Amino acid sequence: MIFTSDDLQRLDTRYRAAFANSLTGFKAANLVGSADADGNQNLAIMSSAVHLGSHPFLIGLVLRPSDARQHTLENILELRSYTLNHVHESFYQEAHQTAARYPRGVSEFVAVGLTAELVEGFPAPFIAEARIRLGLELREHHPLAINGTHLLIGEVVLVDVPDTNVAEDGSVDLGASGTVTISGLDCYHRVQQLGRLAYAKPDL
Amino acid sequence: MIFTSDDLQRLDTRYRAAFANSLTGFKAANLVGSADADGNQNLAIMSSAVHLGSHPFLIGLVLRPSDARQHTLENILELRSYTLNHVHESFYQEAHQTAARYPRGVSEFVAVGLTAELVEGFPAPFIAEARIRLGLELREHHPLAINGTHLLIGEVVLVDVPDTNVAEDGSVDLGASGTVTISGLDCYHRVQQLGRLAYAKPDL
Repeated sequence: MIFTSDDLQRLDTRYRAAFANSLTGFKAANLVGSADADGNQNLAIMSSAVHLGSHPFLIGLVLRPSDARQHTLENILELRSYTLNHVHESFYQEAHQTAARYPRGVSEFVAVGLTAELVEGFPAPFIAEARIRLGLELREHHPLAINGTHLLIGEVVLVDVPDTNVAEDGSVDLGASGTVTISGLDCYHRVQQLGRLAYAKPDL
Repeated sequence: MIFTSDDLQRLDTRYRAAFANSLTGFKAANLVGSADADGNQNLAIMSSAVHLGSHPFLIGLVLRPSDARQHTLENILELRSYTLNHVHESFYQEAHQTAARYPRGVSEFVAVGLTAELVEGFPAPFIAEARIRLGLELREHHPLAINGTHLLIGEVVLVDVPDTNVAEDGSVDLGASGTVTISGLDCYHRVQQLGRLAYAKPDL
């Protein structure tokens, strides 16, 4: 079934959101932890984390300001500190529930039943239940005029990962950690490994 | 196991690349099709596609200029047209092989054994074997000074998707399409759906 540009324009808003969000492929499932200067904590599910580089270790995150994640954007710009916590199969339903529009002052940790954990010297909260957790410092903020979204570039300054899931070459077995992947707006999946492939060379 | 910023700095380059690339979570597996003005075609696997918005339907793509994908970047900047083709389980090994550094003039389509398909009025090639395929036009190019990568923002102007995989609400069943997901630099996975969750509201 082919959709032209005109066909896409004519789609109902909700249909188009579900459709377009599905078409990039499978997405990372992360909970972003943040806090404001008064210590009010926020937690928001996001599927827009993208690897930007390993040295320095940079991750991009795309945020829309007009949704339930607004407090998260304000918090990150204020404290310049945030956490990425992998969503695991054991709490994906709680993770999804953080997308609800709770009023300011309500911590999604409390509302959905996940445990905030603070690490010495780091103002943003981690999730105690998450096995793979990253602490980031904001390096750049690029408002994208084309559609009003915001690209945040953060440097990873802290990594917590189960050592049994890290292979000798540094790769991490995300399936063994129970990390899930998202498609579209609301569909969650566990994975089954097909295989690791050798470094690609022209002659192989 | 905790890695501080200092620990991360001290990691061996290859270890750090495998480690850092694993930690954002599962990634989209796409083959990017492009061509230069002379009609030389390129195909490159990329895991950096990120949904930027549904109206207009925008996708971000992060490219490093210094690797095998260099020709793809040059082609996209030249013709401002490119395709995203989902990687399916049936050809994930061929897809991975496109990461090899073939010399300019060698089409990865031919080198790895995938079929280029042209659509009237669209200069960049699609993959005949892919069931979910998007045609994009370049809208913005943001060189990211922080690490020399490039963020390309493209508008989707053509979508080809099997109608049997599109639900009534517009969401697409990527698992049914055979689309795979990547972790790290080289690990491929099929998915198993856990469930779709209702739109999150505070009272539910």
